[in-house]
Amino acid sequence: MIEAKGYAAQSPTTDLAPWAFERREVGPHDVQFEILFCGVCHSDLHQIRNEWFPGIFPMVPGHEIVGRVTNVGSHVKKFKVGDLAGTGCLVDSCRECDSCKEGLEQYCENGAVGTYNSYEKDGKTPTYGGYSNTIVVHEDFVLHISPDLDLAAVAPLLCAGITTYSPLKHWKVGKGHKLGVLGLGGLGHMAVKFGVAFGAEVTVLSTSPKKEEDAKKLGAHKFVVTTDEEQVKGVKRYFDFILDTVSAEHDINMYLSLLKRDGTHICVGAPSEPSKIHAFSLLAGRKSLAGSGIGGLPETQEMLDYCAEHNIVSDIELIDIKDITASYERMQKGDVRYRFVIDMATL
Amino acid sequence: MIEAKGYAAQSPTTDLAPWAFERREVGPHDVQFEILFCGVCHSDLHQIRNEWFPGIFPMVPGHEIVGRVTNVGSHVKKFKVGDLAGTGCLVDSCRECDSCKEGLEQYCENGAVGTYNSYEKDGKTPTYGGYSNTIVVHEDFVLHISPDLDLAAVAPLLCAGITTYSPLKHWKVGKGHKLGVLGLGGLGHMAVKFGVAFGAEVTVLSTSPKKEEDAKKLGAHKFVVTTDEEQVKGVKRYFDFILDTVSAEHDINMYLSLLKRDGTHICVGAPSEPSKIHAFSLLAGRKSLAGSGIGGLPETQEMLDYCAEHNIVSDIELIDIKDITASYERMQKGDVRYRFVIDMATL
Repeated sequence: MIEAKGYAAQSPTTDLAPWAFERREVGPHDVQFEILFCGVCHSDLHQIRNEWFPGIFPMVPGHEIVGRVTNVGSHVKKFKVGDLAGTGCLVDSCRECDSCKEGLEQYCENGAVGTYNSYEKDGKTPTYGGYSNTIVVHEDFVLHISPDLDLAAVAPLLCAGITTYSPLKHWKVGKGHKLGVLGLGGLGHMAVKFGVAFGAEVTVLSTSPKKEEDAKKLGAHKFVVTTDEEQVKGVKRYFDFILDTVSAEHDINMYLSLLKRDGTHICVGAPSEPSKIHAFSLLAGRKSLAGSGIGGLPETQEMLDYCAEHNIVSDIELIDIKDITASYERMQKGDVRYRFVIDMATL
Repeated sequence: MIEAKGYAAQSPTTDLAPWAFERREVGPHDVQFEILFCGVCHSDLHQIRNEWFPGIFPMVPGHEIVGRVTNVGSHVKKFKVGDLAGTGCLVDSCRECDSCKEGLEQYCENGAVGTYNSYEKDGKTPTYGGYSNTIVVHEDFVLHISPDLDLAAVAPLLCAGITTYSPLKHWKVGKGHKLGVLGLGGLGHMAVKFGVAFGAEVTVLSTSPKKEEDAKKLGAHKFVVTTDEEQVKGVKRYFDFILDTVSAEHDINMYLSLLKRDGTHICVGAPSEPSKIHAFSLLAGRKSLAGSGIGGLPETQEMLDYCAEHNIVSDIELIDIKDITASYERMQKGDVRYRFVIDMATL
């Protein structure tokens, strides 16, 4: 086994702290890479606190992982030592169901293997994430990273990036569309960048008036403070799509009223409590409330390549891993512009 | 003014009882017709009891109206005295917004005028529905009815028919699709007939095992008792579409789990309480929860013509208007196969 170190939560009620653990030996199809940066996702916090479902502890969070290849298995074809590499939310899937065959491994019908808080396909070996110095992943779940971009700022593309890129692509959001981006955080700021890049008119919907300047800098065409009734009235039945990146409770019915007829409200955030949806919010205007989860491996690579071509990265604050708990507190208050990324050299 | 008689609720807490009222004189573009039959919709009960929103009283319910033309205005081109005629849930709309121009008057952005429990475009004249002997409607909101079908059984097509026809058409449900029809009542039994006619494999999802025989007679290919865990397990991730006709509370998350990836759950019923939707029910499998409301005038005529061509009508129980309150009680218990229709000769 390979000795690894990282930060883990030992239980849902304890903070992250240094922890030594083991990774599997590099198999014939495996890539091992040194983790240089790992993004901090709101779902890391949800999971170490058991807010979604009972977790597997000790838990090493982190699924926005980039680094440099240090070892490859004998059959690995796509990577060589020294290459940049990345891994997102998935490290394996059944590879046999329709979704896997279509490259939509995130919807694997037999249950994909999460990068952490999950079990390998053997059903018993826990997976450990990217708040760590090294990782071993099957080459099919390792992504190529362009050397042309700021590597630390690429890390959040592996979750925040693909989670917003994928639905915008799936629903063909682009020129001629009015897109509302709900919430300007880690996901929201990427949604703005992609929405603008795809040619949509992008409006940020936010409770924080002070984010307007930032939204415009990110390329947003409009900004609506959602606590201001007059501003909200001005965008009634306005949007073709709303991409909802908020994972705290919020009243989706209000946002459905901002959609045009046949509009779609796409959730990519996951509040821990269910949303109360009035039938008339959907019936009146034949609207849809949809969900989308991260992205498959081919699309994640497509997104990374698109970002390299269009010079798109995340806006980040680089942190020392010792400050992770304080960073969580700031993240919960929305006090991050727009993604914390752990500099793994601080481990 | 024209003297009319009908059954009205004088308040949300009183039963329907005979009531004399007035209809407007026949204007240049109006059609007056003698109401021969009127279907009984669950929404009639919701509305006289103020379960959706505060109603306009006295209230004469009924929006599944068929009869014979007795008078036409000087400019009326589409109808002559003696023609069969029908009116559904709408009697007017703004005619200027995009939805009206596209023939989707039900989504009129300035608010369509409901057949009852609504105000005319003047904003003050209440509209009165079809539990009545005669009605005056602008010819644009009057539909042609084929003499080849059983007229009483045509009445429910004006709401139950178009409400299920429209979403199946909009989402292009047909050959190669697996369609679940949730609830086998007035709307559900029409959804089965249309789903089968459009070539889909139709499964009725119902809490009542005793409805299986009927479902099969209506043309359904499969029947699943939704309280039977084993049967439900057998249709996990099975459907492309579920058409949800239930207007009582029910757990939509369970039904979302029966959809394939990218499946759509379409609500046409309107429970009075909001549904609690878990984000993961939508995220896991990129699913959509949509709503659809009745249909526009062109599509309603298209549906009626389709029904005439394919010999499709509603399965009904003809009732005496004096039995309306007892019929509501039976309807609430799901004890109707499958739509009550008032024989207006009993008025």
